[in-house]
Amino acid sequence: MHPFRTHTCGEIRLNHVGEVVRLSGWVHRKRDHGNLLFIDVRDHYGITQGVIDVSSPLFARAEGVRPESVVTVTGKVVARTEDTVNADLPTGQVEVQIEDMNVESPADVLPMQVAGDGEYSDEMRMKHRYLDLRRPSVHANIVLRSRVIASIRRRMTDQGFLEMQTPILTASSPEGARDYLVPSRHHPGMFYALPQAPQQFKQLLMVSGFDKYFQIAPCFRDEDARADRSPGEFYQLDFEMAFATQEDVFAAIEPVMHDVFEEFSSERTVTKPPFPRIPYAEAMLRYGSDKPDLRNPLNISDVTEAFRGSGFGLFAKNVEKGALVRAIPAPGAAERPRSFFDKLNDWARGEGMGGLGYIVFTADGGVKGPIGKNLEDDRIAAIRAAAGVGAGDAVFFTSAQKKDVEKFAGQARERICDELTLREGGTFKFCWIVDYPMYELDEETGEVAFSHNPFSMPQGGLEALESKDPLDILAYQYDIVCNGVELSSGAIRNHRPDIMYKAFAIAGYGKEVVEKEFGGLLNAFKFGAPPHGGSAPGIDRMVMLLADEPNIREIIAFPMNQQAQDLLMGAPAVVDDRRLRELHIKLNLPKVKKDASLKGVGGDQEG
Amino acid sequence: MHPFRTHTCGEIRLNHVGEVVRLSGWVHRKRDHGNLLFIDVRDHYGITQGVIDVSSPLFARAEGVRPESVVTVTGKVVARTEDTVNADLPTGQVEVQIEDMNVESPADVLPMQVAGDGEYSDEMRMKHRYLDLRRPSVHANIVLRSRVIASIRRRMTDQGFLEMQTPILTASSPEGARDYLVPSRHHPGMFYALPQAPQQFKQLLMVSGFDKYFQIAPCFRDEDARADRSPGEFYQLDFEMAFATQEDVFAAIEPVMHDVFEEFSSERTVTKPPFPRIPYAEAMLRYGSDKPDLRNPLNISDVTEAFRGSGFGLFAKNVEKGALVRAIPAPGAAERPRSFFDKLNDWARGEGMGGLGYIVFTADGGVKGPIGKNLEDDRIAAIRAAAGVGAGDAVFFTSAQKKDVEKFAGQARERICDELTLREGGTFKFCWIVDYPMYELDEETGEVAFSHNPFSMPQGGLEALESKDPLDILAYQYDIVCNGVELSSGAIRNHRPDIMYKAFAIAGYGKEVVEKEFGGLLNAFKFGAPPHGGSAPGIDRMVMLLADEPNIREIIAFPMNQQAQDLLMGAPAVVDDRRLRELHIKLNLPKVKKDASLKGVGGDQEG
Repeated sequence: MHPFRTHTCGEIRLNHVGEVVRLSGWVHRKRDHGNLLFIDVRDHYGITQGVIDVSSPLFARAEGVRPESVVTVTGKVVARTEDTVNADLPTGQVEVQIEDMNVESPADVLPMQVAGDGEYSDEMRMKHRYLDLRRPSVHANIVLRSRVIASIRRRMTDQGFLEMQTPILTASSPEGARDYLVPSRHHPGMFYALPQAPQQFKQLLMVSGFDKYFQIAPCFRDEDARADRSPGEFYQLDFEMAFATQEDVFAAIEPVMHDVFEEFSSERTVTKPPFPRIPYAEAMLRYGSDKPDLRNPLNISDVTEAFRGSGFGLFAKNVEKGALVRAIPAPGAAERPRSFFDKLNDWARGEGMGGLGYIVFTADGGVKGPIGKNLEDDRIAAIRAAAGVGAGDAVFFTSAQKKDVEKFAGQARERICDELTLREGGTFKFCWIVDYPMYELDEETGEVAFSHNPFSMPQGGLEALESKDPLDILAYQYDIVCNGVELSSGAIRNHRPDIMYKAFAIAGYGKEVVEKEFGGLLNAFKFGAPPHGGSAPGIDRMVMLLADEPNIREIIAFPMNQQAQDLLMGAPAVVDDRRLRELHIKLNLPKVKKDASLKGVGGDQEG
Repeated sequence: MHPFRTHTCGEIRLNHVGEVVRLSGWVHRKRDHGNLLFIDVRDHYGITQGVIDVSSPLFARAEGVRPESVVTVTGKVVARTEDTVNADLPTGQVEVQIEDMNVESPADVLPMQVAGDGEYSDEMRMKHRYLDLRRPSVHANIVLRSRVIASIRRRMTDQGFLEMQTPILTASSPEGARDYLVPSRHHPGMFYALPQAPQQFKQLLMVSGFDKYFQIAPCFRDEDARADRSPGEFYQLDFEMAFATQEDVFAAIEPVMHDVFEEFSSERTVTKPPFPRIPYAEAMLRYGSDKPDLRNPLNISDVTEAFRGSGFGLFAKNVEKGALVRAIPAPGAAERPRSFFDKLNDWARGEGMGGLGYIVFTADGGVKGPIGKNLEDDRIAAIRAAAGVGAGDAVFFTSAQKKDVEKFAGQARERICDELTLREGGTFKFCWIVDYPMYELDEETGEVAFSHNPFSMPQGGLEALESKDPLDILAYQYDIVCNGVELSSGAIRNHRPDIMYKAFAIAGYGKEVVEKEFGGLLNAFKFGAPPHGGSAPGIDRMVMLLADEPNIREIIAFPMNQQAQDLLMGAPAVVDDRRLRELHIKLNLPKVKKDASLKGVGGDQEG
């Protein structure tokens, strides 16, 4: 018989009754019924109940085994009596009569419990992550993560993508965030950088003649922690395709996203490909956001003309000054009490919108609210038509200059959706945001600036750059969004040095800037570069959506805490001076402020 | 029609004749036949020949396109005439009559050629790696690497292993090599380390209740470059299993290794599981190495007793002083000229062995050579039997103290195999080396020391430690070896703090050392740890074997050079002082030596 197990703790069923089995696992729970001791033995696969009779020589020893000790038990499988069957447990129809027990590893008194639903501080959980990870819900999240990534890999590979590793010790990249730096021992005064993303390498792979690349790529940004971003490292499904149009990129990744989400949906529905393509301008109008949550059924509409020169003076005056007015429908809100409208208005003021006007279309066909009283019938009819509302509904308004009105209307759309509990549940709604503008006016300088990624291909290519108003030029750039979460940006890249120089010139940069920021890749482009594009959906965010966890630390086995510390392994840590000398660096510590509490503690640290 | 391609350059066949196709790729070769211009268009998938008639308006433009420019060509597929069929090319029965051509990206004059078999310096290749990677043989190696890794992943996943990512920004680990350090911005004076291997994390995953873990894990060691190790980073198939015996580990990984090697064998044979298990002591005797190349058919044997008190004074005296004598057979060597034996003797002297004695068993049953003359018949018969040689063969001898004689005999075995060209070709021969000793005598101090990994489980557990001579204790530790290449070490781990304290005590270390070196994991073991073990075969070495490449840089897309530099992206590089201040470090550069050539160049660097 195997020294540790003949079966896992998750697989014993009625058909094993009569067999002598051996199981190994953690003592999940013990229940002492006086004459019987029940021990639930737990492993990765499940829990099986063991039982020891008081007459057994094992009884006393088993009684003394602390929870979370690791044991190997051997005994006969018996059927439970009908009244003791546990329907919640896959193994709940049987139990093992323990005839032999070996304690492989006794547990000390636990700092936190594994069984049960105890709430523990982040510090406790991170410091004893090996206990935290045993808790079934945390354990399940990490298993889910692993399965999701394996599924992504399989689907990408099946589509002919080749996974390739790109360097982790590399050069600083112009991604915008802070790099982590690694001092070089061989090259005094020089540093490697950890990649913020393998962007340049994946483009170099295309220039190297590889056709479809992907990588579950570790990325590193020295940024402060956020709920949806771990300090330090994160993973993305980095991919790139040669000789591909934007639609080719979509057609490649949509089935992967759909199928992975469907595989792990737990009965939630998933948008079928092709995912809706929403031009950026339309998204900003209809949803007030370029990461719209399409589970929210509300559509914003522009009603500026309905207010121009109208009797509602506040908006009419705004419109004269170039402001826009946007309408957010509130279906079925006519029956809500006055307090509903007041509360939304107060919320809007708190958000800096200066209030949220509204019209109520009563069930009997009337119109209520201060705005309605000051508008002619044809204007009200126009609003009603634009907002798609009717009797029994309400419509809210916000007015401001374009950028602000988009943002405010978007926030109001979300708020109203929540207040009316209109958000569709049990679904993953995907969309692409496309046609991002290549340039925008810099609000401070009033000059033309890149609006998103300077390295995307402008739609219309060189001709567009040479002939069109820069503010009218769109880029082959796109985001994929699910339930209001931006999973990634992507683009068809600008692979032509001539177009790149021109694109930068329009934004006021000379050739030397392009060469400095983009040198390695630009040189490569001069020796034959294929048109190419790709994207890089965030793995952690995908798993968060699937696990329905709002905090990224719930879906990573060994996350750092908010202060970018690994409390379990003790990182970061102090290092020997000898090591620093080898690396040709020394510490340059902030001066410790002298105050009363530190007096007499000792000398200053090195300043 | 798709703007770039209807087909890849590798798929056009006779059944496409008559179709108008569009292909995109690099201009691999151009051949101008005066009235016809042939253009080979190459992409990731293959090469297709295009042809343009001199009468075409495209002719002049196509003539001017430099090799490696990226083009899109459109035209009708036609069958080649019988005398122009290229049987070496999968697409060699057809060509495309180019009717339209678009230059997507013109190439400058190339610093190195892609077509042909030009030899280029490492510096040239690394600096223009995007050209080097287009060369079919280099390209194929990187594709092989990707396919091998995908195959490993699939096979591990199919066996129920879960791939999990462990932290890359972590704490220093006691693996023995130098860590790469990463200064912390948030924690002045503190550093993360990049993992030399995820050893502690995989063990923590076991303690966390996961059952079968694996990872294609990036590992980082700040070591000097070697042919089989890239400076900086490398990848291993890191895996670990809970509740597993040594045989369970072997049974899990053997089919993966076998099947992966067979999948990519290119008609080479692969050892069928179960792979031979060779105890360490036997390997050192028979092969003089714990990484034996089993393609070498020669077996070393011990013939110490045959020389004890014999007429061959040199060896007899050595044996009196405790030396051993080992015999290496040389089948069929009897017919070799005297120079063959002299050459081997000279080589042995050069290696510090003091020569390589031998006996020749002539075809007619006689004995030749200086040693044979000084030995009695029964001694010669004993040697003949031990070495497994007969008429027509020879046998070589080396004599020294145990460690040296093992090493010398192992070197001689390899040399003799090569001289006789006995090494079996076209095969991958796997074996396990098992039963490593737990302890050895330190040659300098004469005290008991760990011989390999202090954290392996001793065979016999605590009882063995308490009752046996430490030098007789074996460990559950094993290496997997293929064709003389050590792919990895592995072990059943010591998961019991009590056994660990005792194991360290025998080697002269107190509890505090265990706690310092192994703190995070040791604490975890106190709260219920399963018996567990695993291994971590090197991915790069596996791919090197399969690609039959002796240099690791041939199987990595973007390797660093021998000086740990990335010449393409320019890493490592100088960093702004502002960045260093943020990281609380400053440079501590070696003083520049003043010499004539530097006089007047400027001030010293910061000392």
